[in-house]
Amino acid sequence: MRRLLIEGGTFVTMDDSRPIMKGWMAVEGTQIAAMGEGEAPESEVRAAAETFKGEGFLFLPGLVNSHGHAAMSLLRGLADDLVLQDWLQNHMWPMEARFTSDDVYWGTSLAAAEMIRTGTTTFVDMYDHMNRVGEVVDSSGMRGVLTRGAIGLCPEDVQREKLRDAVTFAKEWNGAANGRITTMMCPHAPYTCPPGFIEKFVEAAHELNLPMHTHMSETAAEVEQNVRDYGVRPVEHLDKLGLFSRPALVAHAVHLTDEEIALLAERGVAVSHNPVSNLKLASGVARVPELLKAGVTVSLGTDSVASNNNLDLFEEIRMAALLHKGVSGDPTVVPATEALRMGTSQGAKSVFLDGVTGVLKPGLKADFIAMSTANTRFVPRTDYVSHLVYSASGMDVTHVWVDGKQLLRNGELLTLDEERIRAEAQRCFERLRG
Amino acid sequence: MRRLLIEGGTFVTMDDSRPIMKGWMAVEGTQIAAMGEGEAPESEVRAAAETFKGEGFLFLPGLVNSHGHAAMSLLRGLADDLVLQDWLQNHMWPMEARFTSDDVYWGTSLAAAEMIRTGTTTFVDMYDHMNRVGEVVDSSGMRGVLTRGAIGLCPEDVQREKLRDAVTFAKEWNGAANGRITTMMCPHAPYTCPPGFIEKFVEAAHELNLPMHTHMSETAAEVEQNVRDYGVRPVEHLDKLGLFSRPALVAHAVHLTDEEIALLAERGVAVSHNPVSNLKLASGVARVPELLKAGVTVSLGTDSVASNNNLDLFEEIRMAALLHKGVSGDPTVVPATEALRMGTSQGAKSVFLDGVTGVLKPGLKADFIAMSTANTRFVPRTDYVSHLVYSASGMDVTHVWVDGKQLLRNGELLTLDEERIRAEAQRCFERLRG
Repeated sequence: MRRLLIEGGTFVTMDDSRPIMKGWMAVEGTQIAAMGEGEAPESEVRAAAETFKGEGFLFLPGLVNSHGHAAMSLLRGLADDLVLQDWLQNHMWPMEARFTSDDVYWGTSLAAAEMIRTGTTTFVDMYDHMNRVGEVVDSSGMRGVLTRGAIGLCPEDVQREKLRDAVTFAKEWNGAANGRITTMMCPHAPYTCPPGFIEKFVEAAHELNLPMHTHMSETAAEVEQNVRDYGVRPVEHLDKLGLFSRPALVAHAVHLTDEEIALLAERGVAVSHNPVSNLKLASGVARVPELLKAGVTVSLGTDSVASNNNLDLFEEIRMAALLHKGVSGDPTVVPATEALRMGTSQGAKSVFLDGVTGVLKPGLKADFIAMSTANTRFVPRTDYVSHLVYSASGMDVTHVWVDGKQLLRNGELLTLDEERIRAEAQRCFERLRG
Repeated sequence: MRRLLIEGGTFVTMDDSRPIMKGWMAVEGTQIAAMGEGEAPESEVRAAAETFKGEGFLFLPGLVNSHGHAAMSLLRGLADDLVLQDWLQNHMWPMEARFTSDDVYWGTSLAAAEMIRTGTTTFVDMYDHMNRVGEVVDSSGMRGVLTRGAIGLCPEDVQREKLRDAVTFAKEWNGAANGRITTMMCPHAPYTCPPGFIEKFVEAAHELNLPMHTHMSETAAEVEQNVRDYGVRPVEHLDKLGLFSRPALVAHAVHLTDEEIALLAERGVAVSHNPVSNLKLASGVARVPELLKAGVTVSLGTDSVASNNNLDLFEEIRMAALLHKGVSGDPTVVPATEALRMGTSQGAKSVFLDGVTGVLKPGLKADFIAMSTANTRFVPRTDYVSHLVYSASGMDVTHVWVDGKQLLRNGELLTLDEERIRAEAQRCFERLRG
């Protein structure tokens, strides 16, 4: 196998044993083979089939976007600044109802191009026509944690069909694309799925030995509805339905009581924090400092472009570091390192890829990005973690590797035809708008 | 005078009479000479000495950064995630006390490079060694609204010297750099300036016919202190001292009562909203929806890089549009157009340059920027104002003109030597850190 040697780089490893390392890293096949400080040993230089001069670059683990609906990139800028129900019922849902498998393919391709460009190497996707999403993950070279999200507000035969579809996808695609695709089971949300429907997904997850994903407690209104309909708040409700008997990742978790936070921690449930989407839709501000204090694994998601409106995870990292300081009145909460962990190592952990990606360490997959420090935003050379969190942009990312394969070189996408994707996405959008 | 013709562009004018225009714009000397829809008339094509093909670009007024301390770019990433007093007293002030005029020159140059690159054409600067800031504005080609900020917690002779310095600078530099520099009088803040000291600045502003600038009500603690020391909150305090008898711009204004908002509106005081800095330092969230409702002119400032940590005003625009929705629970507040106005036309108005810059309109100064729409972030082509606010980055800016002169071409700075600036800034920082 070809061995790639990166020399003379600064590595923000997210490995607590050596957070910042000036040195070298060797990649063989899909993995990080070896790393070390200072100059690369002679043996490494001889073994290398390819060498990358790392001076002027920061290397870090590829980012993990732990919640989203990639195909909705087609709806960017369609409807903003609206009340949630108006936005959903009069703008999003009518458009999404017209989505064909072709739209999902091109919308997801548009999202993949944007994510690679801005340093995201692993993304969670919850949508429909998931085999088309799988195709994009396969051909783009990214890592995807995919799930068919199912809304259960429909007749029983349609529910059964959705469950079958979700199970088939989860089974067939788990481990696909050389293991870069893993799958989850996903009832859409407690307020869109009857309890029996959720239980069927949990049952299937047990059979398939898969984790669970769902939206939870995004708005105050849905929490109230849960109490009205089921007598308990969403965390207890899902716990009773067995959802947390599987490894689980819940998206949003904005409206939580202390008791709910304690239960999430006890059950080892991970939370995908989506600060930009939660602000834009006026859902509120999640209690992230309290979640972290309780030991809950918190990662970051963009949610879809329709409520963000981009996929640059550096913006979520920065927002997570800023927002909770301002809202809590304590400038020491969510420090830079913690925010960066949310976007990398904790991201990987929350999507059940702990020990696979999210950290630069021998034995882990070679999912990493290089950022040019030539931009004034990295001057002076003080604290690179601070610069990454508070100053950088995803647009500083110049090179991306996933599973040892390069996907972006000097700002050029190697696996995707971006010009065609832009044109096809525009065509899809125009047809959808009718 | 050479005439520049931009053909086939999409113009986000910020002129309410035609917000988005597909067409052409002619620039002669320092001004926008003419604009129109569709194809440029033959007479314009003949008159043009230079033509710019506008297809694939969005043109908009150069952004206005209405509060900052540019030289503090030297302190980027020096100290984050600290309590305000620790940050100021143990990190910022000791470093700033060592700032020489050379440091101010190179720190401001670093800031100017970053601002031009990210589309800011006019910036407010409040600092010391202001003649060096004036030099940077002059040579960079930017527009600057400059003021010597004076802290009055010092012996009377030092106070007198500071006042003299502020007056001398304000007098000598007002109208400099072909009118691109204007000046203000600026007592630093009510909590750092005795009342008599503030009154002397107001008096000087009347004599020189200049506007006033100051920090106000950034933290809850300083408001409490104001009440303790003077029996009234800061707005009433400054009003009594006559500060609002001049045209005035106050930075931050985070902690305001309804009565204070009404008084600011009545006095025509403009507010520079600094959302990122206010979050990072945990100062709180300004009552922007209420300020807008009361008719107060609200613009956007980055504050210094030390509490931001970059100067990309697109991030302030996005933050202003997002933050107030999430905190108020109303997704309709600060819609995209309003946020963009804060960064452009309202910005200009708040820095006393209404009718000069901030809008694309014949007769105004030719301060404008071009952004490439080739990025996936502008796909699909739906609502360009939405894309600018919720999706774009200052790094999409490719060309910048100020006063009719081009400062950035295809991402290359034409008036500043960026490589040297980065090196000098690093050198200054290392000397300061000692």
